[in-house]
Amino acid sequence: MQLTRVGVFGASGYSGLELVRILERHPAVELVFASSERSVGARASPRLRYASGDACKKQLGSVSMVFTATPTESSLELVPLARASGVSVIDLSGAFRLTDASCYPTFYGFAHSAPELLKDAVYGLSEWKSARGATLVANPGCYATAVEMALLPLLQAHIIDARRIVVTAASGVSGAGRKATDALTFMEVDSDFRAYRTIDHQHLPEIRQTLATLGDSAADCTFVPHLLPMKRGVLATAVVRLAQGVSGTRVREILESAYANAPLVRCAACAEDVRIADVANTPLTIIGASTDGATAVITCAIDNLLKGAASQAVQNLNAMLDLPTDEGLPQ
Amino acid sequence: MQLTRVGVFGASGYSGLELVRILERHPAVELVFASSERSVGARASPRLRYASGDACKKQLGSVSMVFTATPTESSLELVPLARASGVSVIDLSGAFRLTDASCYPTFYGFAHSAPELLKDAVYGLSEWKSARGATLVANPGCYATAVEMALLPLLQAHIIDARRIVVTAASGVSGAGRKATDALTFMEVDSDFRAYRTIDHQHLPEIRQTLATLGDSAADCTFVPHLLPMKRGVLATAVVRLAQGVSGTRVREILESAYANAPLVRCAACAEDVRIADVANTPLTIIGASTDGATAVITCAIDNLLKGAASQAVQNLNAMLDLPTDEGLPQ
Amino acid sequence: MQLTRVGVFGASGYSGLELVRILERHPAVELVFASSERSVGARASPRLRYASGDACKKQLGSVSMVFTATPTESSLELVPLARASGVSVIDLSGAFRLTDASCYPTFYGFAHSAPELLKDAVYGLSEWKSARGATLVANPGCYATAVEMALLPLLQAHIIDARRIVVTAASGVSGAGRKATDALTFMEVDSDFRAYRTIDHQHLPEIRQTLATLGDSAADCTFVPHLLPMKRGVLATAVVRLAQGVSGTRVREILESAYANAPLVRCAACAEDVRIADVANTPLTIIGASTDGATAVITCAIDNLLKGAASQAVQNLNAMLDLPTDEGLPQ
Amino acid sequence: MQLTRVGVFGASGYSGLELVRILERHPAVELVFASSERSVGARASPRLRYASGDACKKQLGSVSMVFTATPTESSLELVPLARASGVSVIDLSGAFRLTDASCYPTFYGFAHSAPELLKDAVYGLSEWKSARGATLVANPGCYATAVEMALLPLLQAHIIDARRIVVTAASGVSGAGRKATDALTFMEVDSDFRAYRTIDHQHLPEIRQTLATLGDSAADCTFVPHLLPMKRGVLATAVVRLAQGVSGTRVREILESAYANAPLVRCAACAEDVRIADVANTPLTIIGASTDGATAVITCAIDNLLKGAASQAVQNLNAMLDLPTDEGLPQ
Repeated sequence: MQLTRVGVFGASGYSGLELVRILERHPAVELVFASSERSVGARASPRLRYASGDACKKQLGSVSMVFTATPTESSLELVPLARASGVSVIDLSGAFRLTDASCYPTFYGFAHSAPELLKDAVYGLSEWKSARGATLVANPGCYATAVEMALLPLLQAHIIDARRIVVTAASGVSGAGRKATDALTFMEVDSDFRAYRTIDHQHLPEIRQTLATLGDSAADCTFVPHLLPMKRGVLATAVVRLAQGVSGTRVREILESAYANAPLVRCAACAEDVRIADVANTPLTIIGASTDGATAVITCAIDNLLKGAASQAVQNLNAMLDLPTDEGLPQ
Repeated sequence: MQLTRVGVFGASGYSGLELVRILERHPAVELVFASSERSVGARASPRLRYASGDACKKQLGSVSMVFTATPTESSLELVPLARASGVSVIDLSGAFRLTDASCYPTFYGFAHSAPELLKDAVYGLSEWKSARGATLVANPGCYATAVEMALLPLLQAHIIDARRIVVTAASGVSGAGRKATDALTFMEVDSDFRAYRTIDHQHLPEIRQTLATLGDSAADCTFVPHLLPMKRGVLATAVVRLAQGVSGTRVREILESAYANAPLVRCAACAEDVRIADVANTPLTIIGASTDGATAVITCAIDNLLKGAASQAVQNLNAMLDLPTDEGLPQ
Repeated sequence: MQLTRVGVFGASGYSGLELVRILERHPAVELVFASSERSVGARASPRLRYASGDACKKQLGSVSMVFTATPTESSLELVPLARASGVSVIDLSGAFRLTDASCYPTFYGFAHSAPELLKDAVYGLSEWKSARGATLVANPGCYATAVEMALLPLLQAHIIDARRIVVTAASGVSGAGRKATDALTFMEVDSDFRAYRTIDHQHLPEIRQTLATLGDSAADCTFVPHLLPMKRGVLATAVVRLAQGVSGTRVREILESAYANAPLVRCAACAEDVRIADVANTPLTIIGASTDGATAVITCAIDNLLKGAASQAVQNLNAMLDLPTDEGLPQ
Repeated sequence: MQLTRVGVFGASGYSGLELVRILERHPAVELVFASSERSVGARASPRLRYASGDACKKQLGSVSMVFTATPTESSLELVPLARASGVSVIDLSGAFRLTDASCYPTFYGFAHSAPELLKDAVYGLSEWKSARGATLVANPGCYATAVEMALLPLLQAHIIDARRIVVTAASGVSGAGRKATDALTFMEVDSDFRAYRTIDHQHLPEIRQTLATLGDSAADCTFVPHLLPMKRGVLATAVVRLAQGVSGTRVREILESAYANAPLVRCAACAEDVRIADVANTPLTIIGASTDGATAVITCAIDNLLKGAASQAVQNLNAMLDLPTDEGLPQ
């Protein structure tokens, strides 16, 4: 089989590191370059050394696909460049996730500089939207992935009140990216827990857009993220009102049915059986629900760097190459 | 000043240890006995050794007040015994918190054996209900404390939809008590996060009862607790609907006004500024709120072993002795 | 290729879990049974369920090799049984590591019940002693592995004072095995660090025996283990006196030369560059040395459950099957 | 009693924060200023706000004593300034600990700019050297304190081989000071353990100097520090050769006798009973020894920010004010 030649921009961030690790072993891919400003010259893998972003841009002509595991601002510059060279892109930042360019100033803090590309972008939540045929994939955010994987089955089945969804979520520290700030030191993080961006997190418009377009057009959602004293993983806890007469059994049937053919998704017996420890370092999503008649609690756990970033990106690559969704993703 | 002679049952549990530490330095108290089955003969403090529960029962005649920092089942036996001896009781278990005895089988797993005492019990959430004059105080649960401290001001002011309250919360491991089970080993807890008792936690009826009696009779609440990979502290995150026209400024004014005279409560500028790290090892409660016009997120942090147990119990003692609420409780 | 049929006793302990995970993917092996008393009936892997030890004993006739990842006392019973059936054994306990049966009462607390098997046992530290042709392999202890991997090159080269070796070491909690005791709860372990068995750890005679037989017959060693607030990994820190005129460069040359052909060993530039984080969840050993002219500090890191147990056992399996030492052990 | 007016430079570092907390409650002290560049204007305590270093320098005339909890380079500038104003100084940095100025370039990286003050400095390890009458106190380093407290009794009693002392030690992250570097992020520190500055740590000459001057002039020592995944605390583990005929009982007698009148020192029954968890957030030192006839293992635990910095500094203040060593230091 001819290998698809790919490159990675942002290869020494936490998501980029995971992505390189997977791509190095992926049977259908040849990793041609991996950019890192901080680690130029160091080994990205046994076969490849990091190069600067500028050096990698010059190699765009030699690949057919790139992953941009870069900050949103960098993606806004790199993605148009790659597309102009006819290279397909899987972008792991938030730069192309929102279809409405006017949301960017509020939630990302800048005006979008390439709004014409937004309509091309496929939102690559693989179990719900195939990237087959796409030339630009907006890889979902980590929180958004966990929330959407939990709620889309219930919204599509119309068994919950779509307008009254409350989600709190918690993430390991790697979700904040690789940087040395006061707030991310061990002294600040260890033995602490707190909420952040409670009202305006950048994944909120992404969640609302996806729940509405892939779930139920009436869907609305409140979302409160928290920071956990641990390295990786996301747990989303959704509290929803059940439609009249919907039993816990029915909720679980709908979840199981939605993911019956999804090799990387597991349904747990109840909300309590969903643990970050069971998904950390795996590409899996685990979802469970408990109910009391009127209310359902649905929990969903993923590894923020894998299903929330790198392994999700590889699921999108697999879709674009017409391969099984879990190709190259050992569980 | 004549010292009040007190005893502690359950003095080597995590709450009991904190309680003894505080009582030892409390200027109005003489600690006469401290029971522990596991540590009989070892030092409870520089001046006192642990004795068995049976030995301590024989000393009931020599004290005027006891703290029962015991499992709920033990409190059900000890409290009637103490009351029969004319000894006042501050009970740190759940045994006397619910006024409706019929809730016990569902949430605690047993029928209540002393229902006649329930009507005597004062629910000792000091900022909202004084224990002055009480002979039996039901010291609030840790989660319940955090939730009630956050919501009672807003319910009393009628600025939120009392019927649509969703709370998720997270606790350090000490909340589960001092015991060696598989689920509480370092290997199970570290780097993990998960929900538990999502629908039927024993603090749920306590929260509902208090929100309804001290806040708004229409109040209803969903409550989902989680286990944190850290030793101590509780953070409650409440998501509520604001009444029409209520601003974030108004929400914060109400919180500040409610606790203006509470020396052990702090109001933060917003929900994000409330951290477990700032309350751990202190008797403080910190509360903050953020709003987006329609929704408010209120977070509240306490130390589960102090405001959630031992220092709250001492606030109740202070009320019973007509002392300032923070007597003997250095911040 | 015909697959070698193997079984695992003690498959739900921490080492057993890792062993099953590796064996399930090993290209030369078919895993036939996996015993666990606690988890009978649950899935050990996608293809296999746990059975009781008794049920597995009955299957001894259907395998050619077993791994005993069991407590030492259990291995003492299982290994003779397997050998009597003509089944080869790789024992992960301490039961067959010491050639002198008289050491067992002091360091393990019991008299050895099968001393006649001790002479058959090959001490399977793969880089130093091949298990090829063995029918009984004593898989090295985790601490012993780290210490021996660090010191054997220097002892064989006679560049250190063999009689004056001081080693301190620290291990993650999984080294204590899977059990719920007070000392292993999160509350006891988190944010703590302490020494244990400072004078009589059961790995001490194993270290002394190996340093003397494979290194330098004059070797003596002091060994002090510590417990770390983390899940896995061992770091050993050896402080030794250098022979006259031996430079730091020479020390590093000797380490590099000793492991030049060892695909699972890495030499770091100095003692400071050896981190548990770099070996956790890998079968690697990383070793580094720093010197000040008279003294050398050599550090060595391994994953206690992999190179210190399961992956080392598979290196021994590979030797017995005449396969490359890293077969089935992705780095 | 007239209060002694004091100031603190470097009051928002980790040691400075602890120092302010203690001084605020110290019955003999009035805290007049607290400098912090990062937090000018914020509350240092209920009664005091941080001011800039420059602003505090102008207040030197209004205090009789200052604490410099500053980086070594800053202390080199501040201490001569304070002394020139006739203000006594307790310096928590390394600037005045070494009597031989020529050691500074090697271990601290700079030439000493005020060598004439070194002879005035009293090395304030309170249990071994009183600061009474001193005008400049060099407050000991955290590692040095733990090592010296463990070894001085044995050296003074001449029961160990003074020339063959090996010490490894481990510290919580706060020992590295309050700063946001890659190496101190949660992602780098959590679940890791490693040695650093194995040969040339700046506390090594301090240890050697103190062991030789206060213990045994022949003393020599190897010292290897490690970084722990936890916030605070130091454990030092010393391995020494016992003189002929010295029993474990004798070792413990000597430790107990050395500290019989030291209210802030505890002797444990053995080396294994010394835990960081028991000294964290206390001004205590706990020491224990285990022996096997020829070798002794002595462990010593302190809180690096208290006995290793702030509470030690207050012990020195107490000595200078002729107060009990534990005045204002609740255990």
